[in-house]
Amino acid sequence: MHELSLETYKAQFDALLVSDPYHKRYLSGFTGSGGHLLLTQSGSELFIAGKYWNQVAEQSPHCHRVNTDEAGWIATLQQRLNQLDIERLGFESHALSYQDVSVLQQGLSQQLVPTTEVVTPLRRCKSPQEIELIRQACAITESAIESGLADFKQGMSEHQLAAHIEFHARLLGADSIDFLIVVSGERGALPHGRPSNRIIGSCELVTIDFGVVYQGYHSDVTRTFCTGQPAQALQDLFDAVKTAQQMGVAMLRPGITASSVDRAVRQNLTQQGYGKAFCHGLGHGVGLQGHEYPILNESSQAILEVGMVLTIEPGVYIEGLGGARVEDTLVMTQDGCESLTTLPRELRDIDSISVNALK
Amino acid sequence: MHELSLETYKAQFDALLVSDPYHKRYLSGFTGSGGHLLLTQSGSELFIAGKYWNQVAEQSPHCHRVNTDEAGWIATLQQRLNQLDIERLGFESHALSYQDVSVLQQGLSQQLVPTTEVVTPLRRCKSPQEIELIRQACAITESAIESGLADFKQGMSEHQLAAHIEFHARLLGADSIDFLIVVSGERGALPHGRPSNRIIGSCELVTIDFGVVYQGYHSDVTRTFCTGQPAQALQDLFDAVKTAQQMGVAMLRPGITASSVDRAVRQNLTQQGYGKAFCHGLGHGVGLQGHEYPILNESSQAILEVGMVLTIEPGVYIEGLGGARVEDTLVMTQDGCESLTTLPRELRDIDSISVNALK
Ligand SMILES: [Mn+2]
Ligand SMILES: [Mn+2]
Repeated sequence: MHELSLETYKAQFDALLVSDPYHKRYLSGFTGSGGHLLLTQSGSELFIAGKYWNQVAEQSPHCHRVNTDEAGWIATLQQRLNQLDIERLGFESHALSYQDVSVLQQGLSQQLVPTTEVVTPLRRCKSPQEIELIRQACAITESAIESGLADFKQGMSEHQLAAHIEFHARLLGADSIDFLIVVSGERGALPHGRPSNRIIGSCELVTIDFGVVYQGYHSDVTRTFCTGQPAQALQDLFDAVKTAQQMGVAMLRPGITASSVDRAVRQNLTQQGYGKAFCHGLGHGVGLQGHEYPILNESSQAILEVGMVLTIEPGVYIEGLGGARVEDTLVMTQDGCESLTTLPRELRDIDSISVNALK
Repeated sequence: MHELSLETYKAQFDALLVSDPYHKRYLSGFTGSGGHLLLTQSGSELFIAGKYWNQVAEQSPHCHRVNTDEAGWIATLQQRLNQLDIERLGFESHALSYQDVSVLQQGLSQQLVPTTEVVTPLRRCKSPQEIELIRQACAITESAIESGLADFKQGMSEHQLAAHIEFHARLLGADSIDFLIVVSGERGALPHGRPSNRIIGSCELVTIDFGVVYQGYHSDVTRTFCTGQPAQALQDLFDAVKTAQQMGVAMLRPGITASSVDRAVRQNLTQQGYGKAFCHGLGHGVGLQGHEYPILNESSQAILEVGMVLTIEPGVYIEGLGGARVEDTLVMTQDGCESLTTLPRELRDIDSISVNALK
């Protein structure tokens, strides 16, 4: 539960209707899919169906509860807005459909004021509690990768290995799987390839990029593995990526621009001969959403701050050969950053992890 | 790929911008998350980033392709609308945010006409190809339940059993898990309970409600199992649900109202002494979405038609005792219906399915 003062917005509106589900959860703690959050100059109110009454008391003790069962939520809101003498109601224009707004306009006598970017800026720096949840999401993710690889057997497809990794993530307590990329051999050249029925061969690179959700918070980690010593070209490619990733992480400190980190890593890979093969942005924020502010790419306007949680994930992708990526989820600190993902970053052989390997 | 003639809407708009992702996929076949679909009196056009060029050619051969890389999608759309002499552009008011519409209003000189329910009615009756995909989704779902139960061991939690079921669904080719409810013992009284860490005990009912996505199409099936012979009260409760469910399915025929089926099943459960314990609607349509038109409840206006795919899922929930539900996904036929879910509906003992049971 996080607080938002409407003081700054006094000239625009008297109260704010929060409809973005992430914003609603962030400001109220309420995890239900229904309900409407109203922020006033004096506090927060949740307009909810009766079935959520107890859940809100538990999750959002600081929120005034208003039951909408009898009159429906819009008439109930109208009544409450009148009581509170609210004339101008702000709403989140990205989170309500054109139809939703038409219905509100018909049902409310208040003036409706479209707003944007009121809550998003608050979410950019994470509280210690949020960092802890992201840390736990990362721990589940990494543990699941290790356990999934322990199940690996010769002859398994990308798809089967992915099923094992997801299985362990669920056993370890992931609320849900956000995404899972498993690409091997030439398919390593697909930055966002979905696990396929391709059988994972020998002396190949295998890129695993995995994120889960734990108590609403996301994780994101990529490691590249091998199945026996790969060809020199693949080893070189991997080494370049690992070097570039380390360099990017080492640059992180409060006050630096996201674009300068992206540019430096891109330049490093160019110097190593892989410039064009790094065909996506360097990273992104992680929190209640898997991809959120700040974006780290060449055109980003973001400046990094203490408490931001973000990824650094350079990759190299060469059609017909393969690819590699190394990604950490990191939290910005006074001195630089701390990595919330801690699996070894070197090229590890899956045979050294699998319990089924002939050792 | 399905066709929509704009003839009926001539008086309202000259072309329609389709933004609802399900509608976009339904009408174009294109599965990418990006892109904008324009329907004109003469055909369909997809406005896409260059990276989707080949994918659209493959998935949507009947759609004219327009590359938006250079000018951005709104300027490109403006240009094309001018070329086509389109003055009034319909848009889906439920699928665009208030902000999206503001941006369109600023970027386009055309008159923007809010519409709703243009594409939804088309989707209510499924084509043979759609029915086949739902059938395959159901087959994966049912197979995964059987395989998950084969893994069952005494001492397993709901959560662990759920992880096994999901694991098999992924191995069997599910694109993603839609949802999975596993509730046992007293938790059976929660109609939508998430799998918990509760250890599944002996002589209990275990309700499993599972849906996956296969090639975009959903499945939905519920079976109630037991772990040894349950108390008479639980057996009675289950028998009542099974009888009511059979009765509802037997009533299905083209032309009947959804509300009358709901009412009859509710009345049947009331006569059996469980009226108040059936606290949700009887069913819902299934297709590209897990819950779609038609809804089957007391206030539904829907009339059932050949080709609709829907669920019949009465349940009985008694706090402190437990609950049961039986659900099939069925397709409406000329004579009545055909069930796409075929697992036995009687109360089966998990011990008779598990390979780990002491037999
Ligand atoms: Mn990432
Ligand atoms: Mn259902």
